[in-house]
Amino acid sequence: MTTTYHPLTEQEAIEIARSIEGVFPEGAALQSREIGDGNLNLVFHITDPASGRSLIMKQALPYAKVVGESWPLTLDRARIESEALILQGKLAPGLVPHVYRYDKELALTIMEDLSSHVIMRRGLMEGTSYPLFADHISTFMANTLFFTSDLGMNQQEKKLLVRDFINPELCKITEELIFDHPYTNADTNDIPAEIQDAIESIWQDGALHCEVALLREKFLIRAEALLHGDLHTGSIFATPESTKVIDPEFAYYGPMGFDIGALLANLLLNFAGQAHWSSDADARARFRSDLLEMVRSIWNQFETKFRALWNDHCVDRLAASAPGYQDAYMKRLLQDTIGFAGCKMVRRVYGLAHVADIDKIPDAAVREQAQRLALAVGTELIRTNRQADSIEHVIDIVKKEGF
Amino acid sequence: MTTTYHPLTEQEAIEIARSIEGVFPEGAALQSREIGDGNLNLVFHITDPASGRSLIMKQALPYAKVVGESWPLTLDRARIESEALILQGKLAPGLVPHVYRYDKELALTIMEDLSSHVIMRRGLMEGTSYPLFADHISTFMANTLFFTSDLGMNQQEKKLLVRDFINPELCKITEELIFDHPYTNADTNDIPAEIQDAIESIWQDGALHCEVALLREKFLIRAEALLHGDLHTGSIFATPESTKVIDPEFAYYGPMGFDIGALLANLLLNFAGQAHWSSDADARARFRSDLLEMVRSIWNQFETKFRALWNDHCVDRLAASAPGYQDAYMKRLLQDTIGFAGCKMVRRVYGLAHVADIDKIPDAAVREQAQRLALAVGTELIRTNRQADSIEHVIDIVKKEGF
Repeated sequence: MTTTYHPLTEQEAIEIARSIEGVFPEGAALQSREIGDGNLNLVFHITDPASGRSLIMKQALPYAKVVGESWPLTLDRARIESEALILQGKLAPGLVPHVYRYDKELALTIMEDLSSHVIMRRGLMEGTSYPLFADHISTFMANTLFFTSDLGMNQQEKKLLVRDFINPELCKITEELIFDHPYTNADTNDIPAEIQDAIESIWQDGALHCEVALLREKFLIRAEALLHGDLHTGSIFATPESTKVIDPEFAYYGPMGFDIGALLANLLLNFAGQAHWSSDADARARFRSDLLEMVRSIWNQFETKFRALWNDHCVDRLAASAPGYQDAYMKRLLQDTIGFAGCKMVRRVYGLAHVADIDKIPDAAVREQAQRLALAVGTELIRTNRQADSIEHVIDIVKKEGF
Repeated sequence: MTTTYHPLTEQEAIEIARSIEGVFPEGAALQSREIGDGNLNLVFHITDPASGRSLIMKQALPYAKVVGESWPLTLDRARIESEALILQGKLAPGLVPHVYRYDKELALTIMEDLSSHVIMRRGLMEGTSYPLFADHISTFMANTLFFTSDLGMNQQEKKLLVRDFINPELCKITEELIFDHPYTNADTNDIPAEIQDAIESIWQDGALHCEVALLREKFLIRAEALLHGDLHTGSIFATPESTKVIDPEFAYYGPMGFDIGALLANLLLNFAGQAHWSSDADARARFRSDLLEMVRSIWNQFETKFRALWNDHCVDRLAASAPGYQDAYMKRLLQDTIGFAGCKMVRRVYGLAHVADIDKIPDAAVREQAQRLALAVGTELIRTNRQADSIEHVIDIVKKEGF
């Protein structure tokens, strides 16, 4: 088989899968199904019905499907994804899929099949509870962020990782779609007509733009840690017992709060959209209350774990010993988290690529209410991020806008 | 001649110099003198006495001379220096030496001879006035910092420059000698016994350590612009009419304030040391007053020029349009500048590698006074950097401590 880059056929995918040792019995009758619902990749689900064994093959496409072939994308993102997954797997064992092989020429990552799991966004939309998720994801974030930062790893080796994870093209998508286009009348925006008034208010809000500019600057400049880079609930496979973070192709060295904020934003977007799945008002209120508790718990557990790593494993003499520095660091990180969460929420209401949590609400009036709630919470998080000193700041804003 | 790396002899340097086109007449009787007084490089001054023409050949050594061969250093810094010089020459024409050739294998940069100029530290120690310096250096800093930042260049291409200028080994020197060792009883410190009491106070000052930790974090994390990285008065060749910035081997993507702060710190160190060169108290007071005016003028001209570039050439839609963002940016940059200036001052009094401005004061009591003044100003700049909103903050501190 040629290894020159080309999008694989399902038959080719099967042949490659067969060459991975230790997964399928010899001579197994493998089946392939292309299951990619993303915009940037082919995803083959290879199964052996006889043994019940399976794996996933993810191949990067040289363009973004969402805009046809007109938005070319580097295949190097497959290397970045694969290397990030392997590193995250070392730092947070069991919380990312195992990588069997990375084929650079084909921009192909072959990894553990997680189809026993459900994409968490869908699970939340269906009202599934994830009682262990806050523990799992706070461990994932604390470990991957701390141990790739100047606090937790050799500071000269960290610079080489910064170099290896320079990711201009995928960062550009974030820079435009999250930190620019929603704040002006850009062609990429996908504007629900019913909330045009709220969107125009955002376009005219200079104080809001200044806060977004400060957050954009952090995204552009602060090489704090190796981020997942796209840590929303669509990048997480979950069951009530298990959590697996996938798709780190946006990985780069950036501000830690961007990962934490992306996650909290998507939980709050689900909160905003929770109006529709249950006609039982009590059940809905309980689920929303659980979501807020999850937001609180994720930050608080993250902070506790990150501080414990700092106290036990800090490699920086001054950071380990300077009185007050850790407190100042955690407060700034919380504020970044809140600001970035706001940016992620706003973008997902009327920028390119909405979230299903809100868009799939069938009733137009209920959907509009969810959109307005998400915008109100998102903009308030952005506006006030630099005043926050506890995660209760977020809870208070949601309660003020959302109950 | 072999091009395998080895430290060049003077005869080899002459042979290479002869191959540079357009500098020396054919058959010229070239002379070489090794004039390096730094710790990291050989510097050959190649001259043709007959024509009066000359050039400089700077070759990186694979170790730091200051500590013998025990501190190995990458030769890649010669590439970094050469590429930085070429880029700075484009952005700030006439303010850096012209590069004739860079030989990667020999870690050798061949460039314009500036021996008509004097190292500015020496010039200042001798009481030379540089009436155009503030204008020149503020242009150098505004142009090189703005046009290599996300404000002034394509933000995806900037990421590739960040990658090309990853400079772990030379950054490590700064991280240790400026942002760590002076704040603890490290072996590298070179402690004048007469100020042991002041130094021990610094070692016990937790609030000061916290501010240094915040500045260290910026040095480690903020990839704002391509810095010179070592912009002290020993890295500047000057005459009253001309300014040439040399030796950017510490270049990397870091916080802009580190360059500006390094420069201001070294002017203030000279201020502290000005007691000795003139027994004429009035002349001394005038020179000191001129130095303070130079500090003020450098910042103010820098700010004016940087804001003008921002207003005319900003590539970032949001940074160009968000009300208040430019003001917030400039204020934070001033604060960084002041904090870094303080760190640079403290280090040069008792860390590794003092400055001649103070160490060469022959009278022990006068020298001690200068050391204490530099420490008092430096620590106060660090302690108060986050309260500053004008360069007058610096002037006021110097006047309070220094007159």
